[in-house]
Amino acid sequence: MEFPSKLIEDAVNEIAKLPGIGKKTALRLVLHLVKENKQKTASLTDALSKMRENIRFCKTCHNISDEEECSICRSHRRDKSLLCVVEESKDVMAIENTSQFIGVYHVLGGIISPMNGIGPSDLKIDSLVDRVAKTQGEIKEIILAVSPTMEGDTTAFYINRRLQQYPVKVTTIARGVSVGGDLEYTDEITLGRSILGRILFS
Amino acid sequence: MEFPSKLIEDAVNEIAKLPGIGKKTALRLVLHLVKENKQKTASLTDALSKMRENIRFCKTCHNISDEEECSICRSHRRDKSLLCVVEESKDVMAIENTSQFIGVYHVLGGIISPMNGIGPSDLKIDSLVDRVAKTQGEIKEIILAVSPTMEGDTTAFYINRRLQQYPVKVTTIARGVSVGGDLEYTDEITLGRSILGRILFS
Repeated sequence: MEFPSKLIEDAVNEIAKLPGIGKKTALRLVLHLVKENKQKTASLTDALSKMRENIRFCKTCHNISDEEECSICRSHRRDKSLLCVVEESKDVMAIENTSQFIGVYHVLGGIISPMNGIGPSDLKIDSLVDRVAKTQGEIKEIILAVSPTMEGDTTAFYINRRLQQYPVKVTTIARGVSVGGDLEYTDEITLGRSILGRILFS
Repeated sequence: MEFPSKLIEDAVNEIAKLPGIGKKTALRLVLHLVKENKQKTASLTDALSKMRENIRFCKTCHNISDEEECSICRSHRRDKSLLCVVEESKDVMAIENTSQFIGVYHVLGGIISPMNGIGPSDLKIDSLVDRVAKTQGEIKEIILAVSPTMEGDTTAFYINRRLQQYPVKVTTIARGVSVGGDLEYTDEITLGRSILGRILFS
């Protein structure tokens, strides 16, 4: 693609580095900004700069936060005995959106993935074990809500082993057919597991 | 959608103002920036700010340019007697990519659209007429390469009328079936026009 201006080219290249955005889309966005007044671009870049410079992570659960401790960890209405372990902040948002969970979280910041060079020490697993050790029995149950993939299973297995020495129940979110899904179109592994992991009809 | 942080929320709202980007995509982009190091966000915002602050428009053709006059207008290898009128800078890029045009351009900056409150005075039409008047016969042909829509037709009609008094040939790009397209799937209006506007088989 030939650009009429080096400035446009640089901006397009920077935007095209974002995931899921190609050069054509990036160009469309840049030309949109050129067409709008300068204030629009300034407020966009300001919001991004401020966000990236000032964003903090909760000292307890490592979720994204504006304060030293996030609003979930600070809340007195959350059940501190129930701790849900997730990979990323977006998983916390997804679970919060269900309104089905009243406990607190622990964000690992990723998943064990030897293929990508991510080992247990790159994640907040030591911090999780410390948290369980320090609270001396306050945490009764740890729910491992990691992705149902090989990496997720590895991570869950590793965390479970590290927590064996503490008096805490380790559970994992249920795996099975999607609500509203069609049995016919469910993949065999999920369907097979949902039969093995069948539950009492209540 | 509930956000764990006001900073994230502001950044998501700003990104979601861009065309074709919704809140979910915006959140994905913001969380990507949070995961990457600060330098990535800084170079993105820098490129955007610099682009918007320093971008200029060619004094002759109003195309995006880094200089006072764009590289096409400055080039001695372009045919100055052939002038192509387009709506936006992206149309110049599209035509340049075809490598089929050796003339120069005139960017209107939009199209006459009473529905959106855009009249002839909001566009660079006076500037086009001035350009034709000033060059005193240097421009032999003006190609109207506007969108084949009702607004485009209106704009072309208006420009043609304004140029009546000058000794210049006004043409429009050919409208017909797409190259590689299937007659069966061409819409009736295009197909109808392509029959009315049939050309000699050479």
